[in-house]
This record gives sequence, structure tokens and C-alpha cells, in this order.
Amino acid sequence: RIDGDRLWASLMELAKIGATAKGGVKRLALTDLDKQGRDLVVGWAREAGLSVTVDQIGNVFMRREGSNPSLPPVMTGSHIDTQPTGGKFDGNYGVLAGLEVVRTLNDNGIVTEAPIEVAFWTNEEGSRFVPVMMGSGVFCGAFSLDTAYAAVDTEGKSVGAELERIGYKGDQVPGQHPIGAYFETHIEQGPVLEDAGKVIGVVPAVMGLSWYDCVVSGMEAHAGPTPMGLRKDALQVATRIMQEVVHIANRYPPYGRGTVGMVQVFPNSRNVIPGEVKFSIDLRNVNDELLNTMHEEMLAFADKTSADTGLSIKVERVSYYPPCPFHPDCVGAVRTATGKLGYSTMDVVSGAGHDAIYTARVAPSGMIFVPCKDGISHNEIEDAQPGHLEAGCNVLLHAMLDRAGV
Amino acid sequence: RIDGDRLWASLMELAKIGATAKGGVKRLALTDLDKQGRDLVVGWAREAGLSVTVDQIGNVFMRREGSNPSLPPVMTGSHIDTQPTGGKFDGNYGVLAGLEVVRTLNDNGIVTEAPIEVAFWTNEEGSRFVPVMMGSGVFCGAFSLDTAYAAVDTEGKSVGAELERIGYKGDQVPGQHPIGAYFETHIEQGPVLEDAGKVIGVVPAVMGLSWYDCVVSGMEAHAGPTPMGLRKDALQVATRIMQEVVHIANRYPPYGRGTVGMVQVFPNSRNVIPGEVKFSIDLRNVNDELLNTMHEEMLAFADKTSADTGLSIKVERVSYYPPCPFHPDCVGAVRTATGKLGYSTMDVVSGAGHDAIYTARVAPSGMIFVPCKDGISHNEIEDAQPGHLEAGCNVLLHAMLDRAGV
Ligand SMILES: NC(=O)NCCC(=O)O
Ligand SMILES: NC(=O)NCCC(=O)O
Repeated sequence: RIDGDRLWASLMELAKIGATAKGGVKRLALTDLDKQGRDLVVGWAREAGLSVTVDQIGNVFMRREGSNPSLPPVMTGSHIDTQPTGGKFDGNYGVLAGLEVVRTLNDNGIVTEAPIEVAFWTNEEGSRFVPVMMGSGVFCGAFSLDTAYAAVDTEGKSVGAELERIGYKGDQVPGQHPIGAYFETHIEQGPVLEDAGKVIGVVPAVMGLSWYDCVVSGMEAHAGPTPMGLRKDALQVATRIMQEVVHIANRYPPYGRGTVGMVQVFPNSRNVIPGEVKFSIDLRNVNDELLNTMHEEMLAFADKTSADTGLSIKVERVSYYPPCPFHPDCVGAVRTATGKLGYSTMDVVSGAGHDAIYTARVAPSGMIFVPCKDGISHNEIEDAQPGHLEAGCNVLLHAMLDRAGV
Repeated sequence: RIDGDRLWASLMELAKIGATAKGGVKRLALTDLDKQGRDLVVGWAREAGLSVTVDQIGNVFMRREGSNPSLPPVMTGSHIDTQPTGGKFDGNYGVLAGLEVVRTLNDNGIVTEAPIEVAFWTNEEGSRFVPVMMGSGVFCGAFSLDTAYAAVDTEGKSVGAELERIGYKGDQVPGQHPIGAYFETHIEQGPVLEDAGKVIGVVPAVMGLSWYDCVVSGMEAHAGPTPMGLRKDALQVATRIMQEVVHIANRYPPYGRGTVGMVQVFPNSRNVIPGEVKFSIDLRNVNDELLNTMHEEMLAFADKTSADTGLSIKVERVSYYPPCPFHPDCVGAVRTATGKLGYSTMDVVSGAGHDAIYTARVAPSGMIFVPCKDGISHNEIEDAQPGHLEAGCNVLLHAMLDRAGV
């Protein structure tokens, strides 16, 4: 069993770097604070006797040798970058749980057959640089190193230059690092476990995701003198589509999701009828066929609304991730470990993307969820119970031992 | 008859001060550009033999004496400040039409019984400093001089300091300036005249106006892992109210108006369910009882929606102007002049507030509307036909002569 207090202490120590007034963490990818966080974790790894390699996109692999050098490592990991108003646990928990597994193996003098590795991936959050899950995306070949290097933040600073600046542009070619199996522990970022009163979520799959930008164009005009019948109010038309996004998701339960999170109104003046409204659409489902049906219904509704109202409506898909089922061996290892340890458990489909969806393209992968308070993350008030974090880490230990062999 | 070419030339000359790339004008109240505009108009007034007085809020009165010094002046005017992306005609037309009336009287050696005055009022637009219609509002006692002086722009500069700086803080106590009758010519800022193919709008009244700030508070959460049934999506609830604003207006034709012009979504991130949405509501009607009914229906709908959804909804009224019927003598003078001159005409209720709604509190007042292209104003592409502007100015001339006596 792992040491829950030590895990908690490490989490709190790392959370000091970039700590915010409201109890959260702001440690954006490739900033000075990210460097401090990386240095701290790498220092702990060295203290625990791990060897450290860094690849060209700044992914860090911390390795504990096994008895059989010909076996690829059993890896765990996540990320330590945060949202601008992020919490202490998102990502960080997955990395420090891996470190705690290693410390526990050391304490107990356990030698695994396969090597054990703990990784942290560069820029998972995508807050400072898009695309999200950058390090694991480059690692698995979803996009090129050059694409990632060229990404710039709002000040025009590039990933390539910032990696160099903070000293984390390594030598290893991304992807040329074998992985035998990959596990990632993470707070659920949703309310399902808490709602059901369960401690461990076995994650069979991650939902597929389609992101869209939608633009409704009408005609801006003065709110007073323009009769209702002569208006081309872009916001009123946009609200119909915003509502339909939710209706579509509700038609495909239990894993249909539909969200409008971002809205910009032009000119955004109290007494001007909006001439243009831009907004985002986020559709998800764990079933790719249903996700595609949702996609088609979305486009058809936009076309129909445009025909009904005479306003132009453009819907452009800007991102698409297919659903990602995890490997039966890894899901099975998590399920077995949870049962052996006697934790209450249920299956929880991940609604959020994680580095594990990219590792799943190159190695058997699986995830372990623990509850977070009120299902809240990407928020400074993100919170989790020490006991739950300890339980998730114990499951990780046993799942990794299962795959690595002793 | 007035000289349409001279009126047009003056409009184009004034429009050079603060001219924008897209053919509009940006001349915000009490800026250096406003000072240049004021100086140009005052210079023209002096050339036309007018005496100039400035009151403590910077309203400027340009006076042509009549034969009977005991009579109060028949006044016309408007404003020369513009929106940040404003046009050449809004306000400016009303001031320069007044100047053209004076020039025409001079050319024809006409002596009126009552004095003739041309006024421009400070900060009608309210873009840089709130409240709107500031100069005429102080003049009629709607709010105090100190309130107006204390208003600051986004940089913290105050009306009092800026008036001083540009040299337009006069001596005269606002309101201690008698007015016998007030006329204001203005572009319609709506599509009614153009739609009906008429040249002159006789304005019987200005609609009453209620402005609200509405805040819907839910719970921000991750768009992926949060099941549809466990969400408190502030945007989805807000869209119901946004749509009801239009339904309410449509229930009270022909003068019901309902607009949501401004929306802010928090945290406004693509994969976060909105936790809070703030938006504006603008309700108008020419009938105060109906406007009040609309107000009550708005509040009742918000309460019902809050009860139905469990989300908090706050609706706060931030401005209220009652409908303003114009004086029968002034409306009659405009109607008679239009008939005499043979212009096609119709009654157009003003949907927008104007300085005339404040002068109406202290003197018989009336307005004259001319068409503007596509009903568009508060926009750099605001446009109007020289022939229409000339017609409106001719109507002004004859309406003023009617009230001033020859
Ligand atoms: N875990 C996480 O927030 N990933 C970002 C991509 C998503 O919205 O699922
Ligand atoms: N004329 C004008 O735009 N006034 C501003 C107040 C309103 O929205 O009516």
C-alpha cells in the first residue's frame, strides 16, 4: 500500500508553485513557474533513484529499472501544467501518484520485471498554446514536432523558443520511447462518482469530441427605431441553435453531451440589435456513430434555421477526436486491482480528453478516476479527498505491478 | 427655401474632424476632436452674426436677435459628439440645419419677432460618459451639474476636468436660459420612412424606454464529464429569457420593442459549461401603460424561469425614460410646414431618445425626421440623401418661422 500522507504532502508542495489567492494554481505550460514545477518533480525523481530523459517536445520520462531490460516499461503519468484558474489536482495527481508508486516500491525493496516509468507530458491543458495534449499528441504522431514548435501564445512566444528558454527541449525523438502499458490516474472532473458514492472509477473509454465555431450574421441596427418585423437579430437566431445543441445531446443519452461555452456578440452594445454572434459548440459521445448523427443533426438544424430566418449561419468543425476505448488488458488490470483492494467502484466513461487517449494509439492504455468535490475542475476551488487520492494511487500500484510483473 | 448645397458642404466639412477610414466619424464628447468641432461650428455662427453663450455643462447657444427682445427664443439644435463608430449625420445634421436656417434668414434679410437660437448639447451619445443626453439632461434638471461633472471615462477623466481642459465650461447656470419653443431635426435612425417611401417624418412622440441588467447564475463545470441532467447551465437558461424579450415586444405592436444587445458569458471557454451570463434588456413602447405591462411580464417570466430551473436570475432596471409626447403646437407647426412645402410625409414615433425629450420638460418641443439609408445609424456607414436633408431643413425653417413670427 502506498503512503497517502506522503502523496498528499507532495501534492501540496507542488501546488505552492503558482498558488493563487483562491487556493488554486496558475502554472501555464512552459512558463517560469512550469520550469520550477518540472525541476521540483525531476528533483524528487532523482532522489528516488530514477533516471530522467527528456524528449524534443519536453515530455519527461523518469525511469526505475526492472529485472528484465528487454521489456518495455510500464508507464504512468499525466501533466503538471494547469489552467489559468486551475486547481491542485488536475494532472498533478497523476504525476505524483506515479512518483508515490515508485517510492512505495523503493520502501518495500520490490524489483519489477519490466521497468517502471513516470511521465509528464508537455502542455496538456492547451490554455497557453493550442492544440491541447500537445506533448502526448506529438509523441503518438497525431501532429508533427514542427507544428507544435510553431504554436505561439497571445504574446507571440513560440513553444520551440519557450522550451529552449526553460531548458526542457530534450534530445530524444518523440515516440522513440517504447511503452509496454500506460496507466493514468486522474480526478474525474465530473460529478458521477460523487453522486453514486463510489471511490474508484474504472474508465472503459473516453468520449469522442467535435468542436465547432458557429457564426450567425444579421444586420446591426438601433434597438429603438427598428420595428420588430424589420429586424435581422443575429442573437435571437443564435439562441435557437444554442438551445438545439442541448436538445441534440439529450436525444442521445446517457453519453450525449452538448455545450455552448463561448459567445461573442457584435457590437455588444445595449441599444444595438446584434449584427453578428460567434459561439462555440462542443458535442460529445462515447459512440462514434451517435456522435456523427449528432453532427449531422447539428448541421441540418443550422441549415433549416438559416432557411427559416434568412440569416446566414456558418458552422465550421474545428476539432474532432474519435471516441477512445481503452485496452481490455489495462481496464482489466484496474478492475482487478480495485476488487482486490476492496474499494467501491463503478465504470465511468471519461467525458474529458486526457494524454491517455494519445498513448492509447501506441500502447495498451487505461485510466483510474477518483472523485472530485462537486465534480468541479478547471477551477481554483477544485478539491479532492486525501483518502480518495490514496485509494486511486493504491489501485495504480497494483495495476502497474500486474502489468510489470514482480 | 434653404440652400441644400451649403448645408451639405457644412456637413462634409464638420465630418472631416474625426473622420474614420470607413467614411464615418469618431468624435467623442469633450475630446480634442470635439473641441475642434465645437470651434468650427462656433466660428461659423460668429460669421453668421450670432452671439454665443456657453453654460456650465458646455451646452452652446448661438443667438440671432428678434424684433421683440421680451420674447424667449425659438430654438433648434442637437449634438455634435458621435459614437466611437458613428456617422456624419446623427446629431450633426440637427445643429447644421439650424445654422443653415440662420444663414437663409440672413440672406433674405428676414427679421423674426422672437429671437432664433441654435444649440448644441454636450455628450448626447453617452459613449464616453454616462448618462446619455447629459447636457440637455442637466439643462432640464433631470440630474445635477455635480452628477454630470463627476462622470468619468474609462481612463478616469471627468466631465468637469475635460470641459475645463477644452475651454467649454461656461458661466451660465444650466436651465437659466429661456426657450419659447424647441425643434430638432434628425435622421430617423430606423427604416420606417425609407420603407414607406416618405421624405418627412412628423414625430408625435418618443417611445419610453426601460433598460435592465440581467444576471443568470448557474454552476460552471467541465463540458465533457458533466451529464446533461446534472448541469446548471447559465447560458441555456439565459437564452429562454433572451427569446422572451422579443416575444413580449411582439405582444404589444406596433410600438413594442425588445432587444438584447449585450451579452457576457463567464468563464467563456469552449469546454466549460457557463456558470454565469450577464446581458442587457432594452424594452420600449410609446404607451407608458403598455411599457409597464411589458416590464411586469419580463419580471414575472424571469421569476418563473428561475423557479422552473432552480437557477438564480436577477433583473435590475438601470434606466427608465417615460414616453415623451411632443407639444401639439410644435407637432402642428411641423405638420403645417411639411404640407405647405408639399413633401410626402407620415407620422413616425421616435424609437430613440433625443435631446428634445429633455427640452420637452421645460418648453414646447417637436422633431422632424428625414430618412437614413437602410435605417442604419450608430455606424460608420450611416448615410442620408442631400435632397432629404434639404427637405428637413426647409421644414425646420418654416416651422421655426411659424413659432417665431415675422
Ligand atoms: N481533461 C481536459 O480538460 N481535457 C481538455 C479537453 C477536453 O475538453 O476534454
Ligand atoms: N438617439 C440615440 O441613439 N439615443 C440614445 C438612447 C437610445 O437608445 O434611444
